[in-house]
Parts: sequence; structure tokens; C-alpha cells
Amino acid sequence: MTDAPTAPPQPGPQTAPPQDIRIGVIGVGKMGADHVERISRRTKGARVSVISDYMRETAEKVSATAPGSRVVDTPEEVITADDVDAVLIASPGQFHREQVLAAIAAGKPVLCEKPLAMNPTDAYDVVRAEHETGRSYVSLGFMRRFDTGYGELKDALEAGELGTPLLLNCKHRNASTPPGFDNTMMVYDSAVHEIDAISFFLEEPVVSVQTIAARSTENAPEGLSDPMLLLFRTASGTVVTDELYVNTKAGYEVRTELVGSKGSATVGLEIGRVTTQQAGGSWGGSVPLDFRPRFIDAYDAEVQAWVTAVADGTNVAPRSATAWDGYVGAAVCEAAERSLSADGAVEVALQERPH
Amino acid sequence: MTDAPTAPPQPGPQTAPPQDIRIGVIGVGKMGADHVERISRRTKGARVSVISDYMRETAEKVSATAPGSRVVDTPEEVITADDVDAVLIASPGQFHREQVLAAIAAGKPVLCEKPLAMNPTDAYDVVRAEHETGRSYVSLGFMRRFDTGYGELKDALEAGELGTPLLLNCKHRNASTPPGFDNTMMVYDSAVHEIDAISFFLEEPVVSVQTIAARSTENAPEGLSDPMLLLFRTASGTVVTDELYVNTKAGYEVRTELVGSKGSATVGLEIGRVTTQQAGGSWGGSVPLDFRPRFIDAYDAEVQAWVTAVADGTNVAPRSATAWDGYVGAAVCEAAERSLSADGAVEVALQERPH
Amino acid sequence: MTDAPTAPPQPGPQTAPPQDIRIGVIGVGKMGADHVERISRRTKGARVSVISDYMRETAEKVSATAPGSRVVDTPEEVITADDVDAVLIASPGQFHREQVLAAIAAGKPVLCEKPLAMNPTDAYDVVRAEHETGRSYVSLGFMRRFDTGYGELKDALEAGELGTPLLLNCKHRNASTPPGFDNTMMVYDSAVHEIDAISFFLEEPVVSVQTIAARSTENAPEGLSDPMLLLFRTASGTVVTDELYVNTKAGYEVRTELVGSKGSATVGLEIGRVTTQQAGGSWGGSVPLDFRPRFIDAYDAEVQAWVTAVADGTNVAPRSATAWDGYVGAAVCEAAERSLSADGAVEVALQERPH
Amino acid sequence: MTDAPTAPPQPGPQTAPPQDIRIGVIGVGKMGADHVERISRRTKGARVSVISDYMRETAEKVSATAPGSRVVDTPEEVITADDVDAVLIASPGQFHREQVLAAIAAGKPVLCEKPLAMNPTDAYDVVRAEHETGRSYVSLGFMRRFDTGYGELKDALEAGELGTPLLLNCKHRNASTPPGFDNTMMVYDSAVHEIDAISFFLEEPVVSVQTIAARSTENAPEGLSDPMLLLFRTASGTVVTDELYVNTKAGYEVRTELVGSKGSATVGLEIGRVTTQQAGGSWGGSVPLDFRPRFIDAYDAEVQAWVTAVADGTNVAPRSATAWDGYVGAAVCEAAERSLSADGAVEVALQERPH
Repeated sequence: MTDAPTAPPQPGPQTAPPQDIRIGVIGVGKMGADHVERISRRTKGARVSVISDYMRETAEKVSATAPGSRVVDTPEEVITADDVDAVLIASPGQFHREQVLAAIAAGKPVLCEKPLAMNPTDAYDVVRAEHETGRSYVSLGFMRRFDTGYGELKDALEAGELGTPLLLNCKHRNASTPPGFDNTMMVYDSAVHEIDAISFFLEEPVVSVQTIAARSTENAPEGLSDPMLLLFRTASGTVVTDELYVNTKAGYEVRTELVGSKGSATVGLEIGRVTTQQAGGSWGGSVPLDFRPRFIDAYDAEVQAWVTAVADGTNVAPRSATAWDGYVGAAVCEAAERSLSADGAVEVALQERPH
Repeated sequence: MTDAPTAPPQPGPQTAPPQDIRIGVIGVGKMGADHVERISRRTKGARVSVISDYMRETAEKVSATAPGSRVVDTPEEVITADDVDAVLIASPGQFHREQVLAAIAAGKPVLCEKPLAMNPTDAYDVVRAEHETGRSYVSLGFMRRFDTGYGELKDALEAGELGTPLLLNCKHRNASTPPGFDNTMMVYDSAVHEIDAISFFLEEPVVSVQTIAARSTENAPEGLSDPMLLLFRTASGTVVTDELYVNTKAGYEVRTELVGSKGSATVGLEIGRVTTQQAGGSWGGSVPLDFRPRFIDAYDAEVQAWVTAVADGTNVAPRSATAWDGYVGAAVCEAAERSLSADGAVEVALQERPH
Repeated sequence: MTDAPTAPPQPGPQTAPPQDIRIGVIGVGKMGADHVERISRRTKGARVSVISDYMRETAEKVSATAPGSRVVDTPEEVITADDVDAVLIASPGQFHREQVLAAIAAGKPVLCEKPLAMNPTDAYDVVRAEHETGRSYVSLGFMRRFDTGYGELKDALEAGELGTPLLLNCKHRNASTPPGFDNTMMVYDSAVHEIDAISFFLEEPVVSVQTIAARSTENAPEGLSDPMLLLFRTASGTVVTDELYVNTKAGYEVRTELVGSKGSATVGLEIGRVTTQQAGGSWGGSVPLDFRPRFIDAYDAEVQAWVTAVADGTNVAPRSATAWDGYVGAAVCEAAERSLSADGAVEVALQERPH
Repeated sequence: MTDAPTAPPQPGPQTAPPQDIRIGVIGVGKMGADHVERISRRTKGARVSVISDYMRETAEKVSATAPGSRVVDTPEEVITADDVDAVLIASPGQFHREQVLAAIAAGKPVLCEKPLAMNPTDAYDVVRAEHETGRSYVSLGFMRRFDTGYGELKDALEAGELGTPLLLNCKHRNASTPPGFDNTMMVYDSAVHEIDAISFFLEEPVVSVQTIAARSTENAPEGLSDPMLLLFRTASGTVVTDELYVNTKAGYEVRTELVGSKGSATVGLEIGRVTTQQAGGSWGGSVPLDFRPRFIDAYDAEVQAWVTAVADGTNVAPRSATAWDGYVGAAVCEAAERSLSADGAVEVALQERPH
């Protein structure tokens, strides 16, 4: 304060206002439309510029809610458009590999909803293609990595508070499943989240997986093992239990306990508003009926972190799932699928990570 | 779907991309700088365009973190600038009345940090000035109204789940106080938040207030009654208890229980990550050391809601505190201050609400 | 082990089996019958030997459930019976003074249900009478002192964990009240428990009490202030809040928070079996509908501690309420009753404690 | 009341005072001495009359604390003593079979600490011997069946609140293990409790068991798999997970979750005194350092229920573990032990239950 500048600072803009990152969105079904709404209303520093969907009419409707956006006919047009700085892929899974590869080829950062590809081989193609560019382009949409609770648990682990991780106990419960939900979907749509949690928390390869089918609830559709227990083992011997129970009729609950040699910690026991109700003789709180209330903040944080990473040129946010995580997830899911009909544990074979 | 248009929709922008609301910020001390950082990084649809502070150098430093912003010398310049659509006031409280009146005169929406004015008379001036324009301009920065827990409790009350409100029990605890903190500041800086909570939840006038000074902690500065208990009564007889304890050394805790004739509900018992620690023989979680972790999301939501209201022309967000709430707060604080040296309850006299 | 006795220990009884303490019970309405059942089935080292009740038939019925007991016509006969070692009084409150005095005169330990007497003067008579004997005879039935949670809080306080006590916050809620329940009964039947909690935790005199009547629930009978807030202040300035709400329709809840200069602790937040229920979207637990489930263990512990004290000749168990506590309770209740129709705080005047 | 008896009831004892059940205790090491102390101080309607221990001196010392008891040289003398109505066995496990058979032969009820025998064949001998008498004599000391939380969960299950049981998730954690603790002891000393919980809650045979050894904590002794995961499957397909982690350094925790088709419920999340501590920035409660605080009430209730059953001639209390449960436990433990060195699940073969 004593050595104040003799020449007074000049008024007026010192820098230009920042330009929004222009995002092209491929696929605007439920998830993609949510992302368009999110980017348009809540994501700072970004706007949706171009949209495509295999249902042109759907794309038009969603575009009408995102001022400044336009609709094109094909994913390719989205990816190559001049007014698209980064690509968000929410199309059906079978198209992901091709679209992500096109984004890499176009040199544009891409946030792809899970899965990265339909099988480990296809996923590994993406890993290699990105690796060959020498840069990072691919983020994978595992939103739990951006959940406050998950983040705190990761912080505690990194800070050494919990010691060596020994067990990771996961519970994943849904109120009910859509028609046609079967054991394979239990692996690829439900367990896939805990499989990514293993990568996130433990950061080491899964070496085997075993399926334990319990007696099924009478509310499960014919043929679905519900609840189902998956057991994973990592290279260093950490055991992961994943209880999947998707027709509880009760609500959506995700609980994750890390048991370490110095302490254990649980996320997902969050207690919000606690009520004692009249004439009820009971106390308690509510359980959300689907994943939205539980993870909406995580989705917002995920997309915001991605946009920030794109803006600063790193392209992939810290702690985000990468193409490699997508490959690992595909490989472990494929092993888990095999374990559905296997006796005992099934091995997971991973390709070498390019370096 | 059956009557699809025969002429295909045209590609290309259907609407222009939305323009950011340009915000002028008056006062960039701790709170104002937080707002600049918030608007620049997290508030969708807004950017900081003009900044003033009585310390020019501070304004320059903060402006450098907000691309596209410039610094001016006076609050008046901020308010009247062509590139300012809305004004955020975070200057010292004694300037609020004048600055808010100027914003109203300029026809610009304003979000003013508490207090609205230094006394009820001054606050009422603002109420009248705004009322005479026939429009809404003034939002007051009581961020708890945008806290998720507060919102859920309000929802439950409005839905009739809790019946008639009978008691509102508030606890407000801080780890420690800054130097010079005295009983008057306990009212105007701490209790003011619960006084606004009365307006928010009960929506009726406070008619009396009583101060109960308990034995003080040895950690309180000389002359501070800490803890202090404030008792309020509303027109319909609902009793509000406010326990203020600001040198707990433990952390920041805000708990609010609404006791109604059909049920009671508590916010602020939130349990996040729960940990059992090695060698400790204990379980539990952490308490934040100041209000930031507890209410950062509420601040973000408050400013976002304000920007959205400015963008849609309503200027004041649903559930936001208004000029009237600011006047009521000033009147109740003034009575609470009188009650510090009174025996028994002190009456609160309110002017009529303009209509 | 190296210096084993050369003469082997002799087999056979080394001591006679212990004799049960023979208890005379005066009054076997609901509470007295509970005590007879307790002593007969759960209290180690005691049995009920003599019973009286103003309804002879009731006494007969209860006696039939307590093998070895007989019925007599009058309280005096109970007190003076040769086969009565100690007296338990569960008659209506207006007879307590006389019966306790008779027990003291007979030199027999007595456990008297609250209240000790109908007014402070009568209660003080008992204090003096006992004091003149130079021995302890009188235990008063405040069972919460034997509740595990209350005991842990007392332990924490005595260990210095909480520092200096500054506030004691009590909540006392019932599902509903019997017919005819009025404000005076709110003081003498409900608040009396928290008034004793003050003696238990703070061990210093109450100097003033104030009643704050809130808006009443529509479920309260005409004329009852429900909820009612009582505020007490002790000699050293500790403030006690007692929220009484006795027609909640929800259940029985007793919560007690001690706020000290080094930490605060709460009892009564106990969470037992936690359930997520199907089709409910809710989690939580049950609230007991009356005080029995909450305090049945405390009653058992109270009577057991008393029997143990009688057996070892101390007559009054550690931490038990004494005649002095009964006198203090009567004096504070009397002041609280006066405060029902007073403006502001009413002073509590206590006689000197005999020493 | 209107038809009162014309002849007045006679005063005087209607029945003789009840006689205490006289208990002979075999083995007064830590556990047996605890039982002697319990029966002498807390168990209503019983006293210890005769004691033996292979260390005569130990027996003498313990006997001195139990007035009216005497010491004999051999278990046989305890069992056949005229002044022993019922036998409590707390000797080393290898003697249990012989001593229980002797008690059955003597026609005396017996409460035997786990295990019933050292192997399934020996345990089945006891089942058959008792069955041949046509009466019940044998209770097995699985105290958790008398824990309040376990009882509530059993109640909820029997009331149909939880629907069909699908999963039973158990966690069993100790602060540390005694020297020499190995994987076999993990099964026979720790897992045995959850194995009995399966019998208690699910009431159907276990058909297979699998051991999953996780990465071990650095606090575990060489060779111990800690944590260890055991997986059981029952005849109807319910899957039971048992996480054993016995060198947590944190404390003693037992948690049991029953996941059913209509709801799930957890015991062992009990939250007692909740404290916020100064200068800690933390809240929480304490974890007991060993099983005593957690289960002392369950032991008391177990022995009291047994004494009551002996007094009323049923000999075995409702919900108590029986000889059959002891046999099942032995068979499942034996399979679990085999599974320690097996790949995948090991089958459990049970003899037919005599009927």
C-alpha cells in the first residue's frame, strides 16, 4: 500500500469477456436432453451450439429449448462443425466407439456417456487412437467421480486417513427396473458404476470377478437375479463386494464403504431433513425414488469440470474417467458377464496400458 | 408424430445465443470478491462487467480475475454504467440504503447483502421507494433461503406435512469470533439470519423479542454474552428460540427445527461421510470450521436464482428476501438490540406494508 | 501360584446364601404394580413381602402375582411390619410426606415416587426429619438418573469433556395427555423431570423460572398451553430451556443437550433398528408411543441400585435423587406454577440445606 | 367392583417365597467368572451353589465372591450335586460334549457356552442323546439372540415387515486379536456367531460356504487373512455375507442387515451419546473397545431367560440356541474351515434332524 503506483491504473476492459465453449451434442434422448438443459441453464462458460439425433424431430424440440443452437442431420456434422469446440456424446452405446474416434480425429475434446464401446477390443481401439495423438481428448461420463461424498472419500484415502484399502463394499439399489431388464443389463447398466468406482478409488486392475446369485425377490422379472452379488479382486488383493438390488420398491440408494487398515468410511448414509410425523410413531427421512436427486449435483459438477478443462486446454478434468478407464470397465464388464454362467471366479485379462 | 411437417425444418440458428447479464459489483472485500469469483466461474448467464471499491487497488486486483470487467471510481458509476444490467452490493452496511435507492432510481435490479439499511426508518425508505415504482427491484442476500435443507423444510410446511407451526427452534454456532465482536454484533451479524428465517418460514410479523444471557464461555471476549438466547413471538403466537453460541471452538453448525401440530422436522443434522477411525474408539464425521462449506451451495443458488430472475424480468427470485423482509429484519434487530438491556420482552412495532 | 497354601482350602459353603431384602409396597396402582412386577421378576436380591392399597381388592390381585407376599390394610402396617426391610411408596402424592416421615421414624430405607411432598414446606419437613437422624433413608424415584444416556452425559461432564456447563436444552414430548391435563399438571407431572435433571447435571440451585406459552396445537385440550417453554436460570448463570409438548400425536421423545465451553453432547437421539421400507421411499425408525420402552431399563436400574444400597447399608444409591432433591424440585415446581400467570421471570427461594 | 366378596380376604402369606434356582458352574475362567458375577448380582431367581475349575485356586477365589457357593473338585461333582438344579458350562470347548451329556444323563438343564462340541459328529451325539430323553435340556450360549437389536430384527421378520429374506449382510469387527489367532480361530471363534445368526434369522440349513481372503491389514499377525469374507448360501437361496475384520484397531462393531423383498433393516448402527467436541471440528460418538459394552445386556438377558425357563420347567428359553443349533453350527464351521483351503464353494452336509 505504501508503494502505490504513481501512474493510476486505466479504467476500461483489461481483457475481453470470455467466450463460451460451444458444445455439440450427439443424441438427445433422456440423458442427452438433460445435458442440453444442464449446459443451457447451469454450466458456466458453455452453450449448446449444434445438436443431432436420429429422430430429427426430437433434436428440433430440444434445440428450441437451447437458444443459439441449431440442428444438423448427422453425428459427423456435429463433430466437424466450425461452431463446435467440444462434443458431448449421449447416443446409444453401439455408436460411441465410432463417434469418439471421429472426435479424436477432428482434434476435439469429447465427453462420452458410458460405455466407451461395446467390448474391450473396441474400447482399446479408442485408447490407442487417443494415445497416438499424444494428447488427451476423451472423458467418460462416470458422474459419481464428481459426487461430493465420493470426492471426500477419495480425499480421505489420498490423505492416508484410511491406510491401505482392504475392502470396498458397494450397495446399489433401485426402486424398479424397466421392462426387459436382464442379468446382462444388470452388469452393463448397474454394476458398471461400481466397476468404475474400483478404478476411481483403488487405481489398480481388477484380476477376477465372481457372480453370486441370491434368491430373487418376487418383484423381479422372470430370469433376473435380483439381488445379485458381484465379487471383484484387484491385483494387490483388495476385495470388492457389489450388492445389486434393483427392484427394492423402496427407492434409490447407493452406499460405498472403504475399509482400510487405518479406518473405514462410508458415503451414502447422508441424512437430510429428518422428520417425526404425527400419528406415525416414527422418525426418519425420505429416500429418492431414482438416481436424479441423488446424483444431479454430480452430473452438474461433471459437466462443469469438463467445460473448465476444455477451456484451459487440458481437455480432461482431474479425477474424470478417461478412455483407459472406459477400456478397463469394458474388460471387467465382459468378464462379469462371463461370470454370470460360470462356476467360481472368472479372470480378467487386460491389455497393456500404452505409455 | 403422424402429422409430420412436409417442409423439412431448416438448419441454422433458430435464435441468437443468449447474452450474459452484465453485473456491476459495489464493494469487493471478502464477500464481494467471493461473489465476483462465483459469477465469473459458476453463475450461468452472467458476467461481472464493472467493479468499484473504496480501495481502488483491491478493485483492480479482483477485476483482474474477472475477464471482461473494468474498474470505476464510485458506486454511482457502477449503478449508472451502460454496460451494467444489474447491481450487486457488498459494500459496508452504512452505504446500502443510498446505493439501493440509486439502483431503484436507475431502474436496475439489485442484490444487496444484508443489512438493507442501518435502522428500520432507513429500511422503510427503501420499501416505499421501490413500491412507488410499481415494480420489484430489490433482493436481499439471505442465502439460507436457497439452502437445500431450508427449502425442503419450507416445502414440507407449505405441503401441510407439519400442520400449524408452533415453535421454531434455531441454533447458530461458530467456532470463534473476530476481535471486537460484541452483543450488538451478535444481534446484527448472527441473529439477523434467524430473524430472516422467521420471515421465511412463518411469514408473519414478530411482535416481541426477549434476550436471555446465559453464563458465558471462558472463550468469549470480555463483555460478550456467549451463548445468548433470543426468544421471539409472532403475531399468531408461534415462539421462536434462537441459541447463539459463537465461540464454541468446535465449528460452524446451524440447526433449525420446525415443530408443528402434525409433525416436526429438523434441518442441519446432515451426516455426510461417516468414518470410524483406527485407534480412536470413535465414529463420526467432521464439522465445518466456518460457514463457507455449509452454505457455499446456498450462495451459488442464490446468485443463480437472482440472475435467472433478472433475465426473465421478474427481478426477484421466488422465495428470495425482499426489501420488505429487509425492513422487518431491521425492525426486529433494533428491538432485539433494545432487549439486550431490557428486563423481559420488548415489543416490535412495524409500519404498515405498502400495498 | 508359587506360594500356594500348604493346607488345601476346605470344600463346603464358606458363607450363607444371601437373604433377599424384603420390600413393603404402599400403593399398587399402575406404577406400584409395575414395581411389584419388577421386583418379583427382575430385581436381584429383593422380594415383595407386604403390600397395601386403599383398594384392598387391588392389593390382593397384585399380591397374588408376587409369591411370598401378603396384604395388609394400612400403609402404617407396611412400614412397621417385621418382615419389611425397606419401603417403596407409590401411593398418591398427597400421602407421600406422611409415609416417608413414618419410614424415617421406623428407621427403614424408603424409595418414594415423585413428588416428595405437595409443597416446598412439607418437603422441607422431610429433609429436616431425615437430617436429624444423622443417616440417609430417602431415595426419590427420578428414574432418568439411571438411564444409560443420562449416565453417559453425567460421566462426560464429570470427566471435564464438556467444560463448564452453559446451557441445558431439554425437550419432553408425549403423544397425548389424559383427560383433564392442565398447565399445572404440565409443571408438576412433566416439567418436574427436567427440573430434577437440572439438579442431577448442574448440582446447583435454580434461582428463577419463566414460562413462555407458545401457540397451542389444535390437538391440545382447551386451556392447555401446549407446547410450553420453561426457562430456568441457575445460581452460576447456566440457562435451561425446557420445551414441553405433550400432544404431539407422534410418540414419546426425551432429548437432552448439555452445551459446555469445551463441547456439547446430546442424549435421546438414539437410533435403534433402521429400516428402509418397500414402496415407501422412506427410511427411519420407530418412536415409542409412551415412556415405558424409553425408560423401562432406567426403572429397572433404579430399583436395582436402591436394593443394592439397602443391602450394603448406604440406603441411597450413588446418583439417586435424595430428599433434598425432592425439596428443590418442589420449590422450583411451585415457582414454575407461579410463573404460569406471571409476566417475566419468577424467583425461586430455597431454604438453607441442613449440614 | 360391585360384586365384592362378602368374606374378606385373609392376611398372611398366600404362597411361599420362591426358591432360587441353584446353579452349578463348570469352569470359571474369564467367561465363567463373568457368569458367576452376573448370577450373583443381576440374575433374578438364581444363585450359584457349586463351582469347579481345573484350577482349584481360581474356583476358590470366584466362589468367595458368590455367597452361599462351595467348590468341588470335578465337573462330575457339580453335575450330580444335590444342591445343583441346573448347570452352566464355561469350560474349554473340548470338554463340552462330555459334560453336556452328563447333565442330560443327570436330568439337569444345562446352558453350555459355544461350541457344543469340537466337531459335527460329537455335536450330533448330543442332539441324539437329548432327543432320546423326549425332553429339552440343552441351551447353547449364543447371546446375540438376546440382544435387543437382534430381537427387533427377528420381530420385524416374523411380522412380515421385510418380506422374503434375500440377503443377510454381517460385519464383525474387533479392535485386535490375542496372540496366536489364526484363520481356523477366525472361523470357530468369530464367524461362529454369524453362523448362528443364520440359524436364528433364517431358520433353514446352510448348503454351501466359500471363503474369500482379501488383502490383509498390516496389523494382522503373519498368516491371518484379515479381513476375511465368508459367503454362505441357504437351502432356499438366501445369500449371507460375513465380513470378519478383527484387527481394525478401532473398536468392536457388529452390524447385521437383513435385506428382504419388502424392506431392509439394519441393527448395530445404534447411535448413543452424540458429542461435538471443542477444537476438534468433529462430531460423533464412541465405539466400544470390546464386545462387553455391546453385548453385556444380551448376556444378562440370556442367563435370565434361561433361569426363567428352568424355573417354569421348559428348560430352554424361547429363541435360545438349542443342541440342534449347536450341531448345525459345528457342521457349518467345519465346512467353513475346509473352505479356507478350497477353491470356490464347499458343500455343507447335515444329518437329518431327529423328530
